[in-house]
Amino acid sequence: MEHLRIDRQRTAARIGRDIETLSGPAHTRDAVAIRRYAYTPEYAATDAYFARELEAIGFTVEHDPVGTLVARNVPKGMPAFGIGSHCDSNRNGGKWDGTLGVVMALELCRLNGEHGLGLPLQLISFLEEEGSGFGQMLLGSRIMAQRATEEQLRESMFELDTGRPFWETAVAAGYEPARWRESQRVLDGLIGWIEPHIEQARVLQDTGNRVGVVNAIAGYVHADVHVHGRDDHAGATPMDFRLDPTTVVAECVLELERLARAAGNATVGTVGEIEVHPSLINAIARDVRFSLDIRGPRDEAYLGVFRDISAFAHERAAARGMTVDVVERQRNPATPMDAAIVAALEAAAAATGEPVLTMHSGAAHDTMCVADSVPTAMVFVPCKDGISHSPAEDAQPEDAAVAVEAILNAIRALVA
Amino acid sequence: MEHLRIDRQRTAARIGRDIETLSGPAHTRDAVAIRRYAYTPEYAATDAYFARELEAIGFTVEHDPVGTLVARNVPKGMPAFGIGSHCDSNRNGGKWDGTLGVVMALELCRLNGEHGLGLPLQLISFLEEEGSGFGQMLLGSRIMAQRATEEQLRESMFELDTGRPFWETAVAAGYEPARWRESQRVLDGLIGWIEPHIEQARVLQDTGNRVGVVNAIAGYVHADVHVHGRDDHAGATPMDFRLDPTTVVAECVLELERLARAAGNATVGTVGEIEVHPSLINAIARDVRFSLDIRGPRDEAYLGVFRDISAFAHERAAARGMTVDVVERQRNPATPMDAAIVAALEAAAAATGEPVLTMHSGAAHDTMCVADSVPTAMVFVPCKDGISHSPAEDAQPEDAAVAVEAILNAIRALVA
Repeated sequence: MEHLRIDRQRTAARIGRDIETLSGPAHTRDAVAIRRYAYTPEYAATDAYFARELEAIGFTVEHDPVGTLVARNVPKGMPAFGIGSHCDSNRNGGKWDGTLGVVMALELCRLNGEHGLGLPLQLISFLEEEGSGFGQMLLGSRIMAQRATEEQLRESMFELDTGRPFWETAVAAGYEPARWRESQRVLDGLIGWIEPHIEQARVLQDTGNRVGVVNAIAGYVHADVHVHGRDDHAGATPMDFRLDPTTVVAECVLELERLARAAGNATVGTVGEIEVHPSLINAIARDVRFSLDIRGPRDEAYLGVFRDISAFAHERAAARGMTVDVVERQRNPATPMDAAIVAALEAAAAATGEPVLTMHSGAAHDTMCVADSVPTAMVFVPCKDGISHSPAEDAQPEDAAVAVEAILNAIRALVA
Repeated sequence: MEHLRIDRQRTAARIGRDIETLSGPAHTRDAVAIRRYAYTPEYAATDAYFARELEAIGFTVEHDPVGTLVARNVPKGMPAFGIGSHCDSNRNGGKWDGTLGVVMALELCRLNGEHGLGLPLQLISFLEEEGSGFGQMLLGSRIMAQRATEEQLRESMFELDTGRPFWETAVAAGYEPARWRESQRVLDGLIGWIEPHIEQARVLQDTGNRVGVVNAIAGYVHADVHVHGRDDHAGATPMDFRLDPTTVVAECVLELERLARAAGNATVGTVGEIEVHPSLINAIARDVRFSLDIRGPRDEAYLGVFRDISAFAHERAAARGMTVDVVERQRNPATPMDAAIVAALEAAAAATGEPVLTMHSGAAHDTMCVADSVPTAMVFVPCKDGISHSPAEDAQPEDAAVAVEAILNAIRALVA
């Protein structure tokens, strides 16, 4: 099949226009950041924009029982290829995270019609990916994948700004959360799924690539290490009389860096939080807590690092006469992408003539939930300096247009 | 001169009784901690207790212009040996810090009479050593040493609990701060000064010694090191794309430990505060600030460590593509104690038959100010587990009695 070259300039212009429209006052609660949480007027206005644009090009638009937007150009349940992302924002959000993926999916639907390709498509805009409304990441896609329980939905989710229960808020917005289990029917008939998204890191920018084909979403483990020492007077306690937990923390930070590099397989390890008690310039710390965020696309690699750094922390604390507790917060396995979709994307992206990188996603995405039952992949668009979850978030519609061309051609090949 | 052995049991009992009396409800604002700040009713009651006890044994009691208690058994300006400490408390204070030193000085005055020794003595109980009332450490002794300015006293010191100016509060308490310069006359005629105090660290306890003869008070430098990295996504940013400031912090914590040990001369170095921004488990830190507390009895030793750790921080940050700022908060030189007084104390302490350690003080004391114009030394009493500035602060009157015997004999030798 010959590569279809789209009018990238026109596509970039439409993507840019969509993004600017959806950054206007009707679509955000804040003048600087983009603030758009599930069931708010700003969210409803954004949802309505996509619905109007999709209906204008012949798509049928519905919502699942909790408010995830689903648009099709074929009857419900018929085979279709899925595309989309989410259009809610992080609390201190920018214009691009999530929304660009839905805008690119809309643009794909437009091009499908304009080029008379006849591809069976189903666009999904997932409810509440960021967790900014109810503190629950991937909420819409977790409901669709049945990764939630009715008890959780009814009793343990509350709107962060008002304290109102999720259930009640969804009903007030006109949805039927009691039918949440039916959400999984949205995936019936999907023969594949591709989510376009900004990268949220600097790999594409710093390696000079314009398209990222994602072959896996990293798994992760989050934990806290508590080092217990002894708070003594910083001036009056000789070096040999100390049980200073900051020294164990320091050894662990450097060992984590070494272990993550040694593990290869794109493993990363980060100490993002360090909390010292009592935190006085003239007192040796009594306790220090530090966080561990260890991830990678290969479970055995990053979990090995977690196991090794935990053992190292115990060993170094013991050697210094102290103790540690390692408390796991959560873990989530890696999600491999579908090899056939990845291959089709790689081929189509290469045919755009632009520099392309096959990579994994270090961040979590709705696609992790879709992948439970549908072959999936993702495509990343470079974002400036890797900045995301910030009003300074920036990306280029021209890069998005290249990705759209690659995705369109990949779907053509996959449904052929 | 033959060593005078006192009735240690009786002295311990009296010291214990004094301490318990001064921990009663009239002498502390709090039922658990000892709270006693300058010019409060609790402080006045404590001051009055010492005045009554001293007058009962023939001492003349006065106050300097800001309220430091001065009691003599010889006329003002006549040669006398100075003893004392402070009786205000830390905000979360215990029974012993400061107060024990004044109680021991009182006991020395009692023993001087009971044994008919005829030693010329001057007891001083310094106003506001802890800085808990007005946020100014060593306030009374700094005023006496003229280490304050009139502008500071009039305009930049306020009662922490009420916001009332120091000056106004002192006047309301019946003192004459306008005559503060005359405070220095208190030191006229002092031929030496010994301050007894709890150790506030665990060296005496852990080495099994009952008396500490202090030969120097440590100098110190306090500073902050700011490491500037780049906040990137913890999951999406490969190890080689990071500018993670926590790694520089970790290297500095370990290097500080190494440098302090290598410097010898009882040098100590502590990182007591670590502040990470933005402090999210899933974000590489952008900036980290950590504090430096570097001390020792030899200025060239601990200042060398400060110089070396500053250079190391710059060097390691540069090697990792980051930058640091080192911002000094304050420094204070070491205060050597008087060799003759130290020698007399060592001899007298040895003659008690109890285990004695010559050591330096890592903490600051009023004696630093007295040392500006008078030959000085200090004597430490062990405190349980080194705990101080806490209601859990504990010490043994029996240890204090041994120290009293040593000080009494040292003064006998020195004034002979």
